[in-house]
Amino acid sequence: MDVFLLFSGGKDSSLSAILLEPFFDVTLVTCNFGFEETWGTAKEVASELGFSHRVLWIDGTILESASDMAVDDGYPNRAINHLHKCALEHVASRHEIVADGTRRDDRVPMLKPPDVQRLEDTKGCMYIRPLLGYGRRAVDTLVNTHLEIEENSSEKIEKSDYEVELRAIIEERQGQEMVHTIFPRQHLQSRVIGRRSFRV
Amino acid sequence: MDVFLLFSGGKDSSLSAILLEPFFDVTLVTCNFGFEETWGTAKEVASELGFSHRVLWIDGTILESASDMAVDDGYPNRAINHLHKCALEHVASRHEIVADGTRRDDRVPMLKPPDVQRLEDTKGCMYIRPLLGYGRRAVDTLVNTHLEIEENSSEKIEKSDYEVELRAIIEERQGQEMVHTIFPRQHLQSRVIGRRSFRV
Repeated sequence: MDVFLLFSGGKDSSLSAILLEPFFDVTLVTCNFGFEETWGTAKEVASELGFSHRVLWIDGTILESASDMAVDDGYPNRAINHLHKCALEHVASRHEIVADGTRRDDRVPMLKPPDVQRLEDTKGCMYIRPLLGYGRRAVDTLVNTHLEIEENSSEKIEKSDYEVELRAIIEERQGQEMVHTIFPRQHLQSRVIGRRSFRV
Repeated sequence: MDVFLLFSGGKDSSLSAILLEPFFDVTLVTCNFGFEETWGTAKEVASELGFSHRVLWIDGTILESASDMAVDDGYPNRAINHLHKCALEHVASRHEIVADGTRRDDRVPMLKPPDVQRLEDTKGCMYIRPLLGYGRRAVDTLVNTHLEIEENSSEKIEKSDYEVELRAIIEERQGQEMVHTIFPRQHLQSRVIGRRSFRV
């Protein structure tokens, strides 16, 4: 059974891949809206973890709408949810089983129950969130068991999530100050650098 | 890492055990309130699936309160949720990681987010629901892959879930008519009779 898992290269989507691995043939999918080449980190991490990886291109007008939302709102939540929903729909149009790394305590991105139902009904897909039943401590415990993580306090973000392209388009169109208004600074970045356990 | 999974012998808790197995040392736990010996089916299924199994005795006054709730309400939902919450608390008082088989589309038993937080905070435990991120179709697909199921339309319930003891105490104290008022008749029963896949 093939599952296509939205993959940013971060801890949650990496752990999700590992949880699915014994039960599915997992392909990791990183979406890109054609504005900036942001998939490099995801591709590297996928290779470190031993999963196949694809980049999926999505219509750039979706990123533009999301950028407008973030600027209008002054914060990025609705925009990131919109990008995530479009990414899931895009993958679900092509594949029967789609998954992501959202977990119990996440607020963004997170599909609400009616959106989950709509996604499955309109696309005829199964949408799986292997971490949804795990809280922060349980996720941290599994991450420490299965992944090697490097933490640093640099401003440079080495991720392939929606935020990177969203920041890039807002910076180009509205300037760097707007980026700092919309996105709270994160003091500690973490990066997946390897895997402690191989297929169990 | 040890995890103690509440286990009724049904499809959902059986599948949950299989999803946890590659990552945890799983012990299946069936609760009993001392009113009727209902754990037999769970013990058999656990053995068929290859997991260790324990019966955990819980104070019978909890079953009595639940019985009152069901009679007052005229339907069993609040009573079953109460029994499930007490069972989780009981296991979480003794073990650090507790799990159950609730899934995305379940309504009963299902802990609300504040109850989940309270359980983890008061007991210092991690509460894991491996099926929470899976919808009905995804669960059915995995069940068909990993479990052998027998369906029959008998009235006899061969389960070890809370409903069995709750029905028994209500029947003894209020009569059979009250049982039929409170519990909707199920036309098709399913029973786990074996496992298709062993540790992957």
